[in-house]
Amino acid sequence: MNILISNDDGIDSRGIASLAATLKEIGNVTVVAPRTEQSAVGHAITMKIPLRVTEYYKDSTFFGYAIDGTPADCIKIGIRNIMKKPPDIVFSGINHGSNTAINIIYSGTVSAAREAAIMDIPAIAISVANHEAKHFEYANKIAKELAYLVVRNNLQKGTLLNVNVPDLPEEEIRGVLLTQQGKSKWDDIYEEREDPYGKKYYWLTGDLVEVDNDLITDHFAIKNKYATITPIHFDLTDYKTFETMKSWNIPEYFKNSNKHVK
Amino acid sequence: MNILISNDDGIDSRGIASLAATLKEIGNVTVVAPRTEQSAVGHAITMKIPLRVTEYYKDSTFFGYAIDGTPADCIKIGIRNIMKKPPDIVFSGINHGSNTAINIIYSGTVSAAREAAIMDIPAIAISVANHEAKHFEYANKIAKELAYLVVRNNLQKGTLLNVNVPDLPEEEIRGVLLTQQGKSKWDDIYEEREDPYGKKYYWLTGDLVEVDNDLITDHFAIKNKYATITPIHFDLTDYKTFETMKSWNIPEYFKNSNKHVK
Repeated sequence: MNILISNDDGIDSRGIASLAATLKEIGNVTVVAPRTEQSAVGHAITMKIPLRVTEYYKDSTFFGYAIDGTPADCIKIGIRNIMKKPPDIVFSGINHGSNTAINIIYSGTVSAAREAAIMDIPAIAISVANHEAKHFEYANKIAKELAYLVVRNNLQKGTLLNVNVPDLPEEEIRGVLLTQQGKSKWDDIYEEREDPYGKKYYWLTGDLVEVDNDLITDHFAIKNKYATITPIHFDLTDYKTFETMKSWNIPEYFKNSNKHVK
Repeated sequence: MNILISNDDGIDSRGIASLAATLKEIGNVTVVAPRTEQSAVGHAITMKIPLRVTEYYKDSTFFGYAIDGTPADCIKIGIRNIMKKPPDIVFSGINHGSNTAINIIYSGTVSAAREAAIMDIPAIAISVANHEAKHFEYANKIAKELAYLVVRNNLQKGTLLNVNVPDLPEEEIRGVLLTQQGKSKWDDIYEEREDPYGKKYYWLTGDLVEVDNDLITDHFAIKNKYATITPIHFDLTDYKTFETMKSWNIPEYFKNSNKHVK
Protein backbone atom coordinates (compact mmCIF):
# COMPACT_ATOMS: atom_id res chain seq x y z
CA MET A 1 0.00 0.00 0.00
CA ASN A 2 1.36 3.43 -0.98
CA ILE A 3 0.56 6.00 1.66
CA LEU A 4 0.95 9.79 1.55
CA ILE A 5 0.96 11.63 4.87
CA SER A 6 0.60 15.35 5.48
CA ASN A 7 -0.60 17.57 8.31
CA ASP A 8 -1.04 21.21 9.31
CA ASP A 9 1.15 21.31 12.41
CA GLY A 10 4.27 21.22 10.26
CA ILE A 11 6.71 18.49 9.29
CA ASP A 12 8.57 18.69 12.61
CA SER A 13 5.52 17.92 14.76
CA ARG A 14 5.42 14.87 17.02
CA GLY A 15 2.08 13.71 15.64
CA ILE A 16 3.19 13.25 12.04
CA ALA A 17 6.36 11.41 13.09
CA SER A 18 4.32 9.05 15.22
CA LEU A 19 1.80 8.37 12.41
CA ALA A 20 4.55 7.83 9.82
CA ALA A 21 6.32 5.31 12.06
CA THR A 22 3.06 3.39 12.52
CA LEU A 23 1.94 3.38 8.89
CA LYS A 24 5.35 2.11 7.76
CA GLU A 25 4.24 -1.18 9.30
CA ILE A 26 1.54 -1.53 6.64
CA GLY A 27 2.89 0.25 3.55
CA ASN A 28 5.33 2.54 1.77
CA VAL A 29 5.08 5.95 3.37
CA THR A 30 5.81 9.31 1.72
CA VAL A 31 5.66 12.39 3.95
CA VAL A 32 4.94 15.77 2.33
CA ALA A 33 4.09 18.39 4.92
CA PRO A 34 4.25 22.14 5.52
CA ARG A 35 7.64 23.44 6.61
CA THR A 36 5.96 25.56 9.28
CA GLU A 37 2.75 25.36 11.28
CA GLN A 38 -0.34 26.06 9.17
CA SER A 39 -3.20 25.72 11.65
CA ALA A 40 -6.49 27.42 10.71
CA VAL A 41 -5.45 28.05 7.11
CA GLY A 42 -8.51 26.12 5.94
CA HIS A 43 -8.37 25.09 2.31
CA ALA A 44 -5.99 27.86 1.22
CA ILE A 45 -3.75 27.08 -1.76
CA THR A 46 -0.70 28.92 -3.07
CA MET A 47 -1.02 30.37 -6.57
CA LYS A 48 0.60 33.81 -6.58
CA ILE A 49 4.01 32.59 -5.49
CA PRO A 50 5.83 29.35 -6.31
CA LEU A 51 6.40 26.48 -3.94
CA ARG A 52 9.76 25.20 -2.76
CA VAL A 53 10.43 21.58 -1.81
CA THR A 54 13.09 20.82 0.80
CA GLU A 55 14.25 17.38 1.87
CA TYR A 56 13.78 17.03 5.60
CA TYR A 57 15.65 14.56 7.78
CA LYS A 58 14.54 14.55 11.38
CA ASP A 59 16.62 11.56 12.40
CA SER A 60 17.53 8.21 10.93
CA THR A 61 13.90 7.06 11.01
CA PHE A 62 11.98 10.06 9.69
CA PHE A 63 12.39 11.54 6.23
CA GLY A 64 9.95 13.79 4.38
CA TYR A 65 9.52 16.65 1.96
CA ALA A 66 8.91 20.05 3.52
CA ILE A 67 6.83 22.53 1.51
CA ASP A 68 6.70 26.29 2.00
CA GLY A 69 2.95 26.22 1.62
CA THR A 70 -0.38 25.04 2.98
CA PRO A 71 -1.61 21.52 3.76
CA ALA A 72 -3.67 21.47 0.52
CA ASP A 73 -0.54 22.53 -1.42
CA CYS A 74 1.34 19.57 0.10
CA ILE A 75 -1.25 17.07 -1.14
CA LYS A 76 -1.34 18.58 -4.63
CA ILE A 77 2.42 18.73 -5.15
CA GLY A 78 2.97 15.48 -3.28
CA ILE A 79 0.70 13.57 -5.64
CA ARG A 80 1.50 15.50 -8.83
CA ASN A 81 5.27 15.86 -8.56
CA ILE A 82 6.84 14.02 -5.66
CA MET A 83 5.27 10.56 -5.70
CA LYS A 84 6.03 8.31 -8.65
CA LYS A 85 2.42 7.09 -8.76
CA PRO A 86 -0.69 8.29 -6.89
CA PRO A 87 -1.05 6.94 -3.34
CA ASP A 88 -3.66 4.33 -2.46
CA ILE A 89 -4.62 6.35 0.60
CA VAL A 90 -3.81 9.75 2.14
CA PHE A 91 -3.56 10.55 5.84
CA SER A 92 -3.48 13.98 7.43
CA GLY A 93 -2.27 14.16 11.02
CA ILE A 94 -1.95 13.19 13.72
CA ASN A 95 -3.11 16.69 14.55
CA HIS A 96 -2.44 18.11 17.99
CA GLY A 97 -5.94 19.31 18.94
CA SER A 98 -9.42 18.13 17.92
CA ASN A 99 -11.14 19.02 14.65
CA THR A 100 -14.84 18.74 15.31
CA ALA A 101 -18.10 20.61 14.72
CA ILE A 102 -17.81 24.00 12.99
CA ASN A 103 -14.04 24.04 13.54
CA ILE A 104 -13.47 21.63 10.68
CA ILE A 105 -14.26 24.54 8.33
CA TYR A 106 -11.02 26.25 9.42
CA SER A 107 -8.92 23.12 9.71
CA GLY A 108 -5.82 22.67 7.60
CA THR A 109 -5.69 19.02 8.70
CA VAL A 110 -9.14 18.30 7.30
CA SER A 111 -8.45 20.37 4.17
CA ALA A 112 -5.39 18.26 3.32
CA ALA A 113 -7.54 15.13 3.42
CA ARG A 114 -10.27 16.92 1.48
CA GLU A 115 -7.80 17.86 -1.26
CA ALA A 116 -7.02 14.15 -1.65
CA ALA A 117 -10.74 13.32 -1.77
CA ILE A 118 -11.16 15.91 -4.55
CA MET A 119 -8.50 13.92 -6.44
CA ASP A 120 -10.60 10.75 -5.88
CA ILE A 121 -8.12 9.28 -3.42
CA PRO A 122 -9.42 7.82 -0.12
CA ALA A 123 -8.37 10.11 2.71
CA ILE A 124 -8.38 10.21 6.48
CA ALA A 125 -7.82 13.22 8.73
CA ILE A 126 -6.88 12.23 12.26
CA SER A 127 -6.56 14.35 15.38
CA VAL A 128 -5.90 13.86 19.07
CA ALA A 129 -8.09 16.13 21.13
CA ASN A 130 -5.45 18.12 22.98
CA HIS A 131 -3.06 20.79 21.74
CA GLU A 132 -0.44 19.27 24.04
CA ALA A 133 -1.27 15.77 22.73
CA LYS A 134 0.36 13.00 24.78
CA HIS A 135 -1.37 9.81 23.64
CA PHE A 136 -0.96 8.90 19.98
CA GLU A 137 -1.16 5.10 20.53
CA TYR A 138 -4.88 4.58 20.03
CA ALA A 139 -5.06 7.12 17.19
CA ASN A 140 -2.33 5.15 15.43
CA LYS A 141 -4.19 1.89 15.99
CA ILE A 142 -7.36 3.42 14.48
CA ALA A 143 -5.34 4.77 11.54
CA LYS A 144 -4.02 1.30 10.70
CA GLU A 145 -7.42 -0.35 11.04
CA LEU A 146 -9.13 2.34 8.98
CA ALA A 147 -6.64 1.97 6.13
CA TYR A 148 -7.79 -1.65 6.04
CA LEU A 149 -11.52 -0.84 6.41
CA VAL A 150 -11.50 1.93 3.80
CA VAL A 151 -9.95 -0.36 1.20
CA ARG A 152 -12.10 -3.39 2.12
CA ASN A 153 -15.33 -1.41 2.08
CA ASN A 154 -14.40 0.73 -0.91
CA LEU A 155 -15.10 4.13 0.67
CA GLN A 156 -17.25 6.32 -1.58
CA LYS A 157 -15.07 8.52 -3.84
CA GLY A 158 -15.22 12.16 -2.83
CA THR A 159 -15.71 11.27 0.84
CA LEU A 160 -13.04 11.58 3.51
CA LEU A 161 -13.10 10.36 7.08
CA ASN A 162 -12.52 12.86 9.85
CA VAL A 163 -11.25 11.01 12.92
CA ASN A 164 -10.90 12.43 16.43
CA VAL A 165 -9.42 10.55 19.37
CA PRO A 166 -9.41 11.52 23.06
CA ASP A 167 -5.95 12.23 24.44
CA LEU A 168 -6.14 9.24 26.77
CA PRO A 169 -4.57 5.81 27.15
CA GLU A 170 -6.51 3.17 25.19
CA GLU A 171 -8.07 1.61 28.28
CA GLU A 172 -9.73 4.92 29.22
CA ILE A 173 -11.30 5.42 25.76
CA ARG A 174 -14.89 4.15 25.77
CA GLY A 175 -15.00 3.03 22.14
CA VAL A 176 -15.19 4.28 18.57
CA LEU A 177 -18.39 5.81 17.15
CA LEU A 178 -19.62 6.66 13.66
CA THR A 179 -20.60 10.33 13.99
CA GLN A 180 -21.82 13.48 12.24
CA GLN A 181 -20.37 17.00 12.28
CA GLY A 182 -21.61 18.84 15.39
CA LYS A 183 -22.87 22.41 15.55
CA SER A 184 -20.84 23.77 18.46
CA LYS A 185 -18.93 26.88 17.49
CA TRP A 186 -16.83 29.75 18.78
CA ASP A 187 -18.30 32.97 20.02
CA ASP A 188 -15.47 35.19 18.79
CA ILE A 189 -14.00 38.01 20.76
CA TYR A 190 -11.29 40.33 19.44
CA GLU A 191 -9.20 41.63 22.29
CA GLU A 192 -8.28 45.23 21.63
CA ARG A 193 -4.68 46.02 22.58
CA GLU A 194 -2.22 48.85 22.02
CA ASP A 195 1.24 48.41 20.50
CA PRO A 196 4.37 50.23 21.83
CA TYR A 197 3.62 53.08 19.39
CA GLY A 198 0.09 53.66 20.65
CA LYS A 199 -1.61 51.95 17.71
CA LYS A 200 -4.46 49.52 18.23
CA TYR A 201 -4.39 45.87 17.25
CA TYR A 202 -6.92 43.08 17.67
CA TRP A 203 -6.33 39.49 18.69
CA LEU A 204 -8.84 36.71 18.09
CA THR A 205 -10.01 34.77 21.10
CA GLY A 206 -13.42 33.61 22.20
CA ASP A 207 -15.62 31.14 24.04
CA LEU A 208 -16.79 27.81 22.76
CA VAL A 209 -20.58 27.64 22.57
CA GLU A 210 -21.50 24.02 23.25
CA VAL A 211 -24.77 23.11 21.56
CA ASP A 212 -24.16 19.40 20.89
CA ASN A 213 -25.67 16.97 23.39
CA ASP A 214 -25.95 13.71 21.47
CA LEU A 215 -23.31 11.02 20.93
CA ILE A 216 -24.18 11.08 17.23
CA THR A 217 -22.13 14.31 16.98
CA ASP A 218 -18.33 14.30 16.84
CA HIS A 219 -18.07 17.11 19.35
CA PHE A 220 -20.19 15.58 22.10
CA ALA A 221 -18.84 12.06 21.59
CA ILE A 222 -15.23 13.10 22.02
CA LYS A 223 -16.09 15.08 25.14
CA ASN A 224 -17.49 11.83 26.45
CA LYS A 225 -14.26 9.92 25.83
CA TYR A 226 -15.25 8.23 22.58
CA ALA A 227 -13.13 8.28 19.45
CA THR A 228 -15.18 9.44 16.45
CA ILE A 229 -15.23 8.80 12.70
CA THR A 230 -17.22 11.29 10.61
CA PRO A 231 -17.63 10.93 6.83
CA ILE A 232 -17.47 14.36 5.18
CA HIS A 233 -17.59 15.53 1.58
CA PHE A 234 -17.12 18.65 -0.50
CA ASP A 235 -20.51 18.86 -2.14
CA LEU A 236 -21.58 22.05 -0.40
CA THR A 237 -24.99 22.37 -2.06
CA ASP A 238 -27.74 22.76 0.52
CA TYR A 239 -30.24 20.44 -1.21
CA LYS A 240 -32.97 21.04 1.37
CA THR A 241 -32.85 24.78 0.78
CA PHE A 242 -32.53 24.12 -2.95
CA GLU A 243 -35.95 22.42 -2.82
CA THR A 244 -37.44 25.21 -0.68
CA MET A 245 -36.06 27.86 -3.00
CA LYS A 246 -37.90 26.43 -5.97
CA SER A 247 -40.92 28.33 -4.62
CA TRP A 248 -38.97 31.58 -5.02
CA ASN A 249 -39.46 31.12 -8.79
CA ILE A 250 -36.02 32.57 -9.49
CA PRO A 251 -36.12 32.46 -13.32
CA GLU A 252 -39.55 34.08 -13.56
CA TYR A 253 -38.80 36.57 -10.81
CA PHE A 254 -35.74 37.88 -12.59
CA LYS A 255 -37.53 38.19 -15.90
CA ASN A 256 -39.42 41.00 -14.18
CA SER A 257 -36.51 42.24 -12.13
CA ASN A 258 -36.15 45.78 -10.94
CA LYS A 259 -39.85 45.59 -10.20
CA HIS A 260 -39.50 45.20 -6.46
CA VAL A 261 -36.43 47.24 -5.71
CA LYS A 262 -36.27 50.90 -6.59
CA MET B 1 -31.25 47.60 6.19
CA ASN B 2 -27.73 47.33 7.61
CA ILE B 3 -25.37 45.74 5.10
CA LEU B 4 -21.80 44.51 5.57
CA ILE B 5 -19.71 44.04 2.44
CA SER B 6 -16.41 42.22 2.10
CA ASN B 7 -14.51 40.44 -0.67
CA ASP B 8 -11.28 38.62 -1.42
CA ASP B 9 -9.89 40.79 -4.20
CA GLY B 10 -9.00 43.48 -1.68
CA ILE B 11 -10.60 46.75 -0.64
CA ASP B 12 -9.25 48.62 -3.67
CA SER B 13 -10.91 46.35 -6.25
CA ARG B 14 -13.42 47.71 -8.75
CA GLY B 15 -15.99 45.04 -7.90
CA ILE B 16 -16.42 45.96 -4.24
CA ALA B 17 -16.67 49.69 -5.03
CA SER B 18 -19.36 48.98 -7.59
CA LEU B 19 -21.36 46.78 -5.19
CA ALA B 20 -21.06 49.26 -2.32
CA ALA B 21 -22.34 52.10 -4.52
CA THR B 22 -25.35 49.98 -5.54
CA LEU B 23 -26.27 48.68 -2.10
CA LYS B 24 -26.18 52.22 -0.66
CA GLU B 25 -29.42 52.70 -2.59
CA ILE B 26 -31.17 50.18 -0.32
CA GLY B 27 -29.40 50.41 3.04
CA ASN B 28 -26.57 51.51 5.30
CA VAL B 29 -23.38 50.01 3.98
CA THR B 30 -20.25 49.14 5.98
CA VAL B 31 -17.23 47.89 4.01
CA VAL B 32 -14.67 45.71 5.80
CA ALA B 33 -12.31 44.07 3.35
CA PRO B 34 -8.78 42.70 3.08
CA ARG B 35 -6.09 45.32 2.52
CA THR B 36 -4.50 43.12 -0.16
CA GLU B 37 -5.73 40.47 -2.55
CA GLN B 38 -6.64 37.20 -0.80
CA SER B 39 -7.79 34.95 -3.62
CA ALA B 40 -7.70 31.19 -2.97
CA VAL B 41 -7.17 31.60 0.76
CA GLY B 42 -10.29 29.52 1.39
CA HIS B 43 -11.62 29.78 4.91
CA ALA B 44 -8.30 30.70 6.52
CA ILE B 45 -8.47 32.80 9.68
CA THR B 46 -5.75 34.68 11.52
CA MET B 47 -5.02 33.51 15.06
CA LYS B 48 -1.25 33.54 15.55
CA ILE B 49 -0.81 37.23 14.81
CA PRO B 50 -3.11 40.13 15.58
CA LEU B 51 -5.19 42.07 13.08
CA ARG B 52 -4.84 45.73 12.23
CA VAL B 53 -7.73 47.91 11.09
CA THR B 54 -6.99 50.85 8.77
CA GLU B 55 -9.50 53.41 7.57
CA TYR B 56 -9.51 53.45 3.79
CA TYR B 57 -10.74 56.35 1.67
CA LYS B 58 -10.72 55.66 -2.03
CA ASP B 59 -12.47 58.85 -3.01
CA SER B 60 -15.33 60.98 -1.71
CA THR B 61 -17.84 58.15 -2.35
CA PHE B 62 -16.06 55.06 -1.06
CA PHE B 63 -15.01 54.52 2.53
CA GLY B 64 -14.19 51.25 4.25
CA TYR B 65 -12.08 49.45 6.81
CA ALA B 66 -9.03 47.61 5.47
CA ILE B 67 -7.90 44.54 7.41
CA ASP B 68 -4.47 42.88 7.22
CA GLY B 69 -6.12 39.50 7.11
CA THR B 70 -8.35 37.09 5.26
CA PRO B 71 -11.94 37.49 4.03
CA ALA B 72 -13.22 35.39 6.96
CA ASP B 73 -11.26 37.62 9.37
CA CYS B 74 -12.99 40.67 7.86
CA ILE B 75 -16.45 39.26 8.54
CA LYS B 76 -15.56 38.28 12.10
CA ILE B 77 -13.98 41.58 13.11
CA GLY B 78 -16.47 43.59 11.06
CA ILE B 79 -19.40 42.12 12.95
CA ARG B 80 -17.73 41.79 16.36
CA ASN B 81 -15.84 45.07 16.62
CA ILE B 82 -16.51 47.49 13.79
CA MET B 83 -20.28 47.53 13.34
CA LYS B 84 -22.39 48.90 16.17
CA LYS B 85 -24.96 46.13 15.72
CA PRO B 86 -24.91 42.98 13.58
CA PRO B 87 -25.82 43.49 9.92
CA ASP B 88 -29.13 42.29 8.48
CA ILE B 89 -27.30 40.83 5.52
CA VAL B 90 -23.71 40.29 4.39
CA PHE B 91 -22.40 40.48 0.82
CA SER B 92 -19.05 39.25 -0.46
CA GLY B 93 -17.94 40.58 -3.85
CA ILE B 94 -18.35 41.49 -6.55
CA ASN B 95 -15.54 39.02 -7.24
CA HIS B 96 -13.53 39.31 -10.43
CA GLY B 97 -13.76 35.73 -11.71
CA SER B 98 -16.37 32.98 -11.25
CA ASN B 99 -16.67 30.79 -8.16
CA THR B 100 -18.35 27.60 -9.28
CA ALA B 101 -18.04 23.82 -8.98
CA ILE B 102 -15.07 22.54 -6.94
CA ASN B 103 -13.44 25.98 -7.01
CA ILE B 104 -15.76 27.27 -4.29
CA ILE B 105 -13.74 25.16 -1.83
CA TYR B 106 -10.75 27.47 -2.37
CA SER B 107 -12.69 30.70 -2.65
CA GLY B 108 -12.10 33.54 -0.22
CA THR B 109 -15.22 35.25 -1.59
CA VAL B 110 -17.45 32.31 -0.69
CA SER B 111 -15.70 31.82 2.66
CA ALA B 112 -16.47 35.39 3.71
CA ALA B 113 -20.17 34.76 3.09
CA ARG B 114 -19.91 31.39 4.80
CA GLU B 115 -18.40 33.00 7.89
CA ALA B 116 -21.49 35.22 8.08
CA ALA B 117 -23.77 32.19 7.66
CA ILE B 118 -21.95 30.51 10.56
CA MET B 119 -22.90 33.59 12.60
CA ASP B 120 -26.55 33.05 11.54
CA ILE B 121 -26.58 36.12 9.29
CA PRO B 122 -28.01 35.82 5.75
CA ALA B 123 -25.16 36.05 3.27
CA ILE B 124 -24.58 36.31 -0.45
CA ALA B 125 -21.33 35.73 -2.36
CA ILE B 126 -21.41 37.30 -5.81
CA SER B 127 -18.95 36.94 -8.68
CA VAL B 128 -18.67 38.06 -12.29
CA ALA B 129 -17.23 35.27 -14.43
CA ASN B 130 -14.12 36.99 -15.75
CA HIS B 131 -10.88 37.94 -13.99
CA GLU B 132 -10.90 41.14 -16.07
CA ALA B 133 -14.56 41.73 -15.18
CA LYS B 134 -16.14 44.53 -17.22
CA HIS B 135 -19.88 44.20 -16.56
CA PHE B 136 -21.02 44.67 -12.99
CA GLU B 137 -24.48 46.10 -13.86
CA TYR B 138 -26.51 42.92 -13.88
CA ALA B 139 -24.65 41.46 -10.89
CA ASN B 140 -25.55 44.60 -8.97
CA LYS B 141 -29.18 44.30 -10.02
CA ILE B 142 -29.27 40.70 -8.80
CA ALA B 143 -27.60 41.73 -5.52
CA LYS B 144 -30.32 44.30 -4.81
CA GLU B 145 -33.15 41.94 -5.72
CA LEU B 146 -31.66 39.10 -3.68
CA ALA B 147 -31.37 41.29 -0.58
CA TYR B 148 -35.12 41.75 -0.93
CA LEU B 149 -35.85 38.07 -1.69
CA VAL B 150 -33.68 36.71 1.12
CA VAL B 151 -35.45 38.86 3.69
CA ARG B 152 -38.94 38.25 2.26
CA ASN B 153 -38.47 34.49 2.04
CA ASN B 154 -36.55 34.21 5.29
CA LEU B 155 -33.54 32.28 3.93
CA GLN B 156 -32.73 29.24 6.07
CA LYS B 157 -30.15 30.12 8.75
CA GLY B 158 -26.77 28.55 8.04
CA THR B 159 -27.31 28.78 4.28
CA LEU B 160 -25.61 31.27 2.01
CA LEU B 161 -26.28 32.01 -1.62
CA ASN B 162 -23.42 31.72 -4.08
CA VAL B 163 -24.19 33.89 -7.12
CA ASN B 164 -22.32 33.91 -10.44
CA VAL B 165 -23.05 36.26 -13.30
CA PRO B 166 -21.69 36.16 -16.87
CA ASP B 167 -19.46 39.12 -17.75
CA LEU B 168 -21.95 40.38 -20.32
CA PRO B 169 -24.37 43.26 -20.78
CA GLU B 170 -27.79 42.44 -19.29
CA GLU B 171 -29.44 41.91 -22.69
CA GLU B 172 -27.01 39.12 -23.53
CA ILE B 173 -27.64 37.20 -20.29
CA ARG B 174 -30.23 34.47 -20.85
CA GLY B 175 -31.75 34.54 -17.36
CA VAL B 176 -31.17 33.57 -13.76
CA LEU B 177 -31.24 29.93 -12.63
CA LEU B 178 -31.42 28.17 -9.27
CA THR B 179 -28.46 25.79 -9.42
CA GLN B 180 -26.33 23.23 -7.58
CA GLN B 181 -22.55 23.08 -7.15
CA GLY B 182 -20.98 21.44 -10.22
CA LYS B 183 -18.24 18.82 -10.24
CA SER B 184 -15.81 20.34 -12.77
CA LYS B 185 -12.34 20.69 -11.30
CA TRP B 186 -8.74 21.51 -12.08
CA ASP B 187 -6.25 18.93 -13.21
CA ASP B 188 -3.26 20.48 -11.47
CA ILE B 189 0.16 20.81 -13.00
CA TYR B 190 3.16 22.20 -11.16
CA GLU B 191 5.57 23.80 -13.59
CA GLU B 192 9.12 23.07 -12.52
CA ARG B 193 11.43 26.06 -12.95
CA GLU B 194 14.89 27.05 -11.85
CA ASP B 195 15.70 30.23 -9.95
CA PRO B 196 18.78 32.40 -10.72
CA TYR B 197 20.74 30.37 -8.16
CA GLY B 198 20.01 27.01 -9.79
CA LYS B 199 17.39 25.97 -7.25
CA LYS B 200 14.11 24.43 -8.32
CA TYR B 201 10.71 25.94 -7.66
CA TYR B 202 7.21 24.86 -8.62
CA TRP B 203 4.34 26.98 -9.86
CA LEU B 204 0.72 25.83 -9.81
CA THR B 205 -1.13 25.83 -13.09
CA GLY B 206 -3.42 23.27 -14.71
CA ASP B 207 -6.31 22.45 -17.01
CA LEU B 208 -9.97 22.67 -16.15
CA VAL B 209 -11.68 19.29 -16.47
CA GLU B 210 -15.25 20.02 -17.56
CA VAL B 211 -17.61 17.30 -16.36
CA ASP B 212 -20.81 19.34 -15.94
CA ASN B 213 -23.31 19.19 -18.79
CA ASP B 214 -26.62 20.13 -17.19
CA LEU B 215 -28.05 23.60 -16.57
CA ILE B 216 -28.82 22.50 -13.00
CA THR B 217 -25.09 22.99 -12.24
CA ASP B 218 -23.59 26.41 -11.62
CA HIS B 219 -20.61 25.68 -13.84
CA PHE B 220 -22.51 24.60 -16.95
CA ALA B 221 -25.20 27.27 -16.58
CA ILE B 222 -22.76 30.15 -16.45
CA LYS B 223 -20.90 28.79 -19.48
CA ASN B 224 -24.24 28.99 -21.23
CA LYS B 225 -24.73 32.66 -20.36
CA TYR B 226 -27.09 32.19 -17.40
CA ALA B 227 -26.59 33.84 -14.05
CA THR B 228 -26.75 31.27 -11.24
CA ILE B 229 -27.84 31.18 -7.61
CA THR B 230 -26.65 28.16 -5.57
CA PRO B 231 -27.64 27.65 -1.91
CA ILE B 232 -24.68 26.24 0.02
CA HIS B 233 -24.11 25.35 3.65
CA PHE B 234 -21.37 24.30 6.02
CA ASP B 235 -22.74 21.01 7.25
CA LEU B 236 -20.07 18.86 5.64
CA THR B 237 -21.38 15.50 6.89
CA ASP B 238 -21.80 13.07 4.01
CA TYR B 239 -25.13 11.63 5.21
CA LYS B 240 -25.39 9.11 2.38
CA THR B 241 -22.01 7.62 3.28
CA PHE B 242 -22.96 7.87 6.95
CA GLU B 243 -25.85 5.49 6.25
CA THR B 244 -23.67 3.16 4.17
CA MET B 245 -20.99 3.12 6.85
CA LYS B 246 -23.42 1.79 9.44
CA SER B 247 -22.74 -1.59 7.87
CA TRP B 248 -19.05 -1.23 8.78
CA ASN B 249 -20.15 -1.81 12.40
CA ILE B 250 -17.53 0.65 13.64
CA PRO B 251 -18.14 0.30 17.41
CA GLU B 252 -18.11 -3.52 17.34
CA TYR B 253 -15.21 -3.64 14.90
CA PHE B 254 -13.00 -1.57 17.16
CA LYS B 255 -13.89 -3.58 20.25
CA ASN B 256 -11.89 -6.31 18.53
CA SER B 257 -9.34 -4.02 16.97
CA ASN B 258 -5.83 -5.09 16.12
CA LYS B 259 -7.42 -8.30 14.88
CA HIS B 260 -7.19 -7.51 11.19
CA VAL B 261 -3.99 -5.56 10.98
CA LYS B 262 -0.72 -7.10 12.10
